[in-house]
Amino acid sequence: MAVYTHISAEDMASLLDRFGAGRLISAKGIAEGVENSNYLVETTSGRFILTVYEKRVDVGDLPFFLGLLDHLAAKGSPVPKTMHAADGAQLMEYQGKKLALIQFMPGVSVSHPTAGQARAVGAQLAQLHLNAGDFTVHRANALGPDGWRQLINDCGHGLAPIDPALPAVVAGAMAAVDAAWPAGLPRGIIHADLFPDNVLMDGDHVTSLIDFYFACDDLLAYDLAIAHAAWCFAANGTGFDAAISQALVAGYEAVRALSADERAALPLLAMGAALRFTLTRAYDWINTPADALVTRKDPMAFARRLMFYQSDAAKGIWA
Amino acid sequence: MAVYTHISAEDMASLLDRFGAGRLISAKGIAEGVENSNYLVETTSGRFILTVYEKRVDVGDLPFFLGLLDHLAAKGSPVPKTMHAADGAQLMEYQGKKLALIQFMPGVSVSHPTAGQARAVGAQLAQLHLNAGDFTVHRANALGPDGWRQLINDCGHGLAPIDPALPAVVAGAMAAVDAAWPAGLPRGIIHADLFPDNVLMDGDHVTSLIDFYFACDDLLAYDLAIAHAAWCFAANGTGFDAAISQALVAGYEAVRALSADERAALPLLAMGAALRFTLTRAYDWINTPADALVTRKDPMAFARRLMFYQSDAAKGIWA
Repeated sequence: MAVYTHISAEDMASLLDRFGAGRLISAKGIAEGVENSNYLVETTSGRFILTVYEKRVDVGDLPFFLGLLDHLAAKGSPVPKTMHAADGAQLMEYQGKKLALIQFMPGVSVSHPTAGQARAVGAQLAQLHLNAGDFTVHRANALGPDGWRQLINDCGHGLAPIDPALPAVVAGAMAAVDAAWPAGLPRGIIHADLFPDNVLMDGDHVTSLIDFYFACDDLLAYDLAIAHAAWCFAANGTGFDAAISQALVAGYEAVRALSADERAALPLLAMGAALRFTLTRAYDWINTPADALVTRKDPMAFARRLMFYQSDAAKGIWA
Repeated sequence: MAVYTHISAEDMASLLDRFGAGRLISAKGIAEGVENSNYLVETTSGRFILTVYEKRVDVGDLPFFLGLLDHLAAKGSPVPKTMHAADGAQLMEYQGKKLALIQFMPGVSVSHPTAGQARAVGAQLAQLHLNAGDFTVHRANALGPDGWRQLINDCGHGLAPIDPALPAVVAGAMAAVDAAWPAGLPRGIIHADLFPDNVLMDGDHVTSLIDFYFACDDLLAYDLAIAHAAWCFAANGTGFDAAISQALVAGYEAVRALSADERAALPLLAMGAALRFTLTRAYDWINTPADALVTRKDPMAFARRLMFYQSDAAKGIWA
């Protein structure tokens, strides 16, 4: 929620010139993304997001992320295109860091999605899976089952102080994943982080999918499970909304039908998705001082989703 | 450099509706201002800055700040207008805080001003002084000589650890101010914080003066002295630029001629301006932990300006 790298107006004008992106009219540092510095930039050619990649991004992954945006945009998915310099470069150096210039997309992220919005998001996620099918660059998912096992190990005895129930909830889910993770399902490129924050909308219309910095190769139905965990509950993990759930899956299937195996796997995939965010949040919680100015996200908000997916109440939702 | 108050898209749409400001298209939290939360908002009616006033702003001062913007804009000064609800209100309540919706202004803040830019800024500052002449609301300056004396007292023994020279520099300047502060000079409403950050430009053209949250009643020539201290040096307080200095004052005088008394007072007014920012920065330095995530601004950057204004080298610059 901050701009870590300050770019003077004079330097910004020069960077825009190298991208052939017009003459600078306005630039505002924006408070989005916890990991990168972002500016909303207006020029005589249009509006852009200028992103400076800070230390938590592996610059070796940037060609994958930026190439994926261009590939998806060319296929008609609502994602921002990237700008290229005259020599084709998508990345420039600034103060020893990499930066990119990406098309600005209108729309707002909703906090209380409607069924109509969930349906539209499901459909765009399926279309993304289809459109990414022939993208030739690949990226392994470091936050799959092997990563979760490592995170449990790294969190160690730190889970119980968060909540006495957390170690058993996590261990139960990990055991279920280990016993039956459906590794043979259709694979491809997934967004892997399609929270409402990462979807821009105008009413029921998806104007853009954004923030592809967790995109990777994995099970397509697991991406739907992540979106399910992200969209169908109140922020604190309570209040499962069956209408949102139904609309999200129906929207997805209107574009890409799930196989019988994928549908059968959804309960476990959803547990895996909830486990993944429980564990990354727990890890950050344990490793962020309580008095740090960075807001810690509550791991229990996802542990509650995990417990819901493990419960009898969840049995009917995938029918 | 953060957004402290999160406004959901749904709530933002409702607030915009109450301001009659069109339908929400896009909203980005912007990383500007250390004290308030700001959103850059686009609607079907235009673009706006939505500001939520956080705890350091005295809400009793808001009618002065917002009324001044409308007054200056109506007179033709390049400042943003404020939006009014159907009942005329400029302020709304959100989560117990006040918020306002202000016109978005294009332009960028320069980091390395040219003489042409300094001349334009000087002229707009003089025009602001003339245009504010019949504004009927008033606000005392809490950061005048009485405030400086109080800050010196509050900083106490904290000045010397910042720099061994600082206590004597500050004491010398305060004694000079106490002996001869020219309280009888022309008074009016001043911006009081016209740093390059608070001026938006397009080349040599001033597109907007912004951030009026220190505006108050005080000596008009003192406002020019503040701008002088803010514009004529490198950020660290070295590198006085005589061409910028000359252009700034000439630009001011092209619109509002200084009286002989004002001109004679400029050396002391500039010392006062440098003292004011030395002291507020020293106070914040002493009262902000070194490991806080908030960036502390170096008090010595203004103590160096102060020493310059006290030096023989400064004697010729006001001729």
